[in-house]
Amino acid sequence: MQTVAIFGVGLIGGSFALALRKAGFTGRIIGVSSDHTIRAALDRQVIDEALPAREAAGLADLLYLAQPIHKIADCLEELDAWVQPGALITDAGSTKKLIVQTANQKIIRARFLGGHPMAGRERRGVEAAEADLFQGRPYVLTPRSPADLDHPVAREFLDWIPRIGSFPIILSAEEHDQTVAFTSHLPQLASTALAALLEGRSEPQSRVYGPALVDSTRLALSSFDIWGDIFDTNRDAIGLALESYIAKLEEFRAALKGPVDGPGDRQLLRRGFDAGSRFASHLRDAT
Amino acid sequence: MQTVAIFGVGLIGGSFALALRKAGFTGRIIGVSSDHTIRAALDRQVIDEALPAREAAGLADLLYLAQPIHKIADCLEELDAWVQPGALITDAGSTKKLIVQTANQKIIRARFLGGHPMAGRERRGVEAAEADLFQGRPYVLTPRSPADLDHPVAREFLDWIPRIGSFPIILSAEEHDQTVAFTSHLPQLASTALAALLEGRSEPQSRVYGPALVDSTRLALSSFDIWGDIFDTNRDAIGLALESYIAKLEEFRAALKGPVDGPGDRQLLRRGFDAGSRFASHLRDAT
Repeated sequence: MQTVAIFGVGLIGGSFALALRKAGFTGRIIGVSSDHTIRAALDRQVIDEALPAREAAGLADLLYLAQPIHKIADCLEELDAWVQPGALITDAGSTKKLIVQTANQKIIRARFLGGHPMAGRERRGVEAAEADLFQGRPYVLTPRSPADLDHPVAREFLDWIPRIGSFPIILSAEEHDQTVAFTSHLPQLASTALAALLEGRSEPQSRVYGPALVDSTRLALSSFDIWGDIFDTNRDAIGLALESYIAKLEEFRAALKGPVDGPGDRQLLRRGFDAGSRFASHLRDAT
Repeated sequence: MQTVAIFGVGLIGGSFALALRKAGFTGRIIGVSSDHTIRAALDRQVIDEALPAREAAGLADLLYLAQPIHKIADCLEELDAWVQPGALITDAGSTKKLIVQTANQKIIRARFLGGHPMAGRERRGVEAAEADLFQGRPYVLTPRSPADLDHPVAREFLDWIPRIGSFPIILSAEEHDQTVAFTSHLPQLASTALAALLEGRSEPQSRVYGPALVDSTRLALSSFDIWGDIFDTNRDAIGLALESYIAKLEEFRAALKGPVDGPGDRQLLRRGFDAGSRFASHLRDAT
């Protein structure tokens, strides 16, 4: 792996470049992005040089697609004609079904391996990129078959995952999308819904709130420019996650409506708190 | 104000003692709490001495009730017989209606002023107490009438609020309880419901989640031992807050079910994200 081309030098693409460099990658890192981003990326020495997509694709052993989901899919429509035979194309898109399907149909001359590093922050752009973003975080890979992982170019790419501080998790594209509907897309919608509800109400204007509200609305700072594509490409699974969440909230609401100090309703809420705090503790132990 | 008795030397009571001392209070601070807590509070020099409730009440100019809500109400049933005439009783309970009503009926010989410092953390107990807990946070006061704030003992207590880094907000008990239903109790239930839902599911076991899920379930670490009393004493307002939140989530769910890339549903989600991120930004500017 001598030449890496990063398509979309934002938070994830930029952090991947910085992480590779920190882990000892001595080859060439080419950036493909908008003019504004390229300038910032060159200023910060995140990339070595910038080229148009076609030229970068023709030079790279590894093509790392880190744009929004639909942009990745558009890019996959064109790349096959431009790449070196035997190069590896991988991506960092937040949903995998559409991207893997598109690659299946369009990428013939190169190898493809879908990926999703489970790292992020609410700030975006190459300005927020950092070499340690993937440290301790899982890196999901969605091979179509075991052979996708066993090819020499894939093995070389996989070798870098622990070196950037991450660890691989192998899932199908469907398993990935169903899982993140609950573990990532639902928390985002829960926070956005809370903040959007309060935006229309008078209560918070009194400043009568604690640090909990600030924490609970942190994710709501995220932009729809990223999330729109995620919703478009994972509707059913997210719909199911939302439905389950609403059902849990309805359980709590019914318990609150019960007779004051009734043993049944108080016990239901207590069980909810116990389950929630067990989950939150395990998560912290595991992280 | 020479002698302060703190009833319930936990996170809030202990932090109030430490904050008073840091702000220059040179009088005596007596703790009334369980044996275990008293030992920890004396070890950490949070209080000067410990006494049984009756004796502490007989000595104090300021009685600061920082137990769980029902315990505060129980305490108010007894205190009137023990206090010095003209002492000030205040409290730090998380809901105000029950406590203010009880004080109205039971506190005759002393003055009463309900309060709620909007500070906290998920760790509990005097071990988590800190002098700066109230720094920059609002301190809600719920006088029954303006005269409650104008009495000399109340004015002396109010003088300490800015000195501990806090700022007062005056509300009726009802306004307070309706407001915190949206700004505090709803965020708690949103986090607990998310964590309780995921506790019963297989998705998070794969470790496929980002830092967002860890943040979103932080509040779920809170204990029902505190929250049970809050739900008991603010059911209607919390029920309304939950209902509004569920309606917002249902809006999002309906939008996701709409035709893929349909302009209507995508616009609805975008507006939700825009409103949420506007709210979250304002909150951060104000905090």
